[in-house]
Amino acid sequence: MRRAGLVGGLGPESTIDYYHRITALCPSAEIIINSLVVDRMVGFITNDRAAAADYLVRAVEQLAAAGADFAAVAANTPHIVFDRVRPRAPIPLVSIVDATLAEVRKRGLERPGVFGTRFTIQSRLYVDAIAPNATEQDFIHDKYMNELLKGMFLPETRARMLAIADRLIDEHRIDSLILGGTELPLLLREESHRGIPLLDTTAIHVNAIVEAIHSDGAI
Amino acid sequence: MRRAGLVGGLGPESTIDYYHRITALCPSAEIIINSLVVDRMVGFITNDRAAAADYLVRAVEQLAAAGADFAAVAANTPHIVFDRVRPRAPIPLVSIVDATLAEVRKRGLERPGVFGTRFTIQSRLYVDAIAPNATEQDFIHDKYMNELLKGMFLPETRARMLAIADRLIDEHRIDSLILGGTELPLLLREESHRGIPLLDTTAIHVNAIVEAIHSDGAI
Repeated sequence: MRRAGLVGGLGPESTIDYYHRITALCPSAEIIINSLVVDRMVGFITNDRAAAADYLVRAVEQLAAAGADFAAVAANTPHIVFDRVRPRAPIPLVSIVDATLAEVRKRGLERPGVFGTRFTIQSRLYVDAIAPNATEQDFIHDKYMNELLKGMFLPETRARMLAIADRLIDEHRIDSLILGGTELPLLLREESHRGIPLLDTTAIHVNAIVEAIHSDGAI
Repeated sequence: MRRAGLVGGLGPESTIDYYHRITALCPSAEIIINSLVVDRMVGFITNDRAAAADYLVRAVEQLAAAGADFAAVAANTPHIVFDRVRPRAPIPLVSIVDATLAEVRKRGLERPGVFGTRFTIQSRLYVDAIAPNATEQDFIHDKYMNELLKGMFLPETRARMLAIADRLIDEHRIDSLILGGTELPLLLREESHRGIPLLDTTAIHVNAIVEAIHSDGAI
């Protein structure tokens, strides 16, 4: 059994979600969580992406020093700088984007939509996915920063998010929706909406992490 | 600001409670959590206390290697072997027992009762506190192991625990009750019962940890 390291705190509520799910699936696994400060990460992502990468590399180095065999960053947005982090990481990293795209392929989905922070959408982290329009994206980003990351999950925000999903279904014929922010499954808990799957990136990432915990070979 | 290390997982639900409370009080603190396996710890505490101490020392060493400036074991029961751990720890440790006894003194409480696992009660971790009788202790221990540590918090268990508190109040005139297990405040959430304070050891420990985070000098 390999020892998982999580870079967490980005934000704290979804880190708790990861911890709950991993300990439920693997009660006999020791895991180590390095909880960073989400406001600091948002500042780096906004102003200095090299500093964002440095912040993540340092966190992964600390997890490795503590004995983690591999690490995962428990959030979507920081994966914007993942290509700058992976080559510098002393241990293998399990990417939420790689795991989600593998799931999209496995399920044969062809027109996924995507929700996430403005950073995630504008950097085209989920490159071929269909994004909300600018106004919708502003709404999602604002609610992500000012409600979801603060642990607030309100019915009116949920209703408006589902209305945006409705428009993407009606006008863009999306066949699935990637919840490309690990706080989103805490607001949109259902597995599907109007017959299309909502892809819970936390759940997909947790499955990949649990697989890596049980893996004996290379990740 | 000093970096806190938590030895967690003993059990997972109370580790989440610590994490929630510390991040709420200190949103700008980086913390690192080394989550151990509670069944393994219970086995060591039952059969091999030296191994329990070794398990904790290794966890604290890993936290120190990851850059923690001090550490806290997020549970009461493992403090049974705390005297064997503290001298071997490479960083200062913040004890839940020390913090709780300081709180008892500060509040001028003279006849505290105590609930906890059988290990905690029989080792007299809270040395002068008044313990439940053997039958009551069996009940509390059984529910601790088979419900609370599994994240089950049932109204009938709660009612029976409060009935035991009632007997300690009526027959032993306790003036307070130490919830000497970090899952207990998840079941008994009120601050007082029939006019006596319920001492939430998680809250008391978290306050001591937050003080250590903000402390510049020795802990």
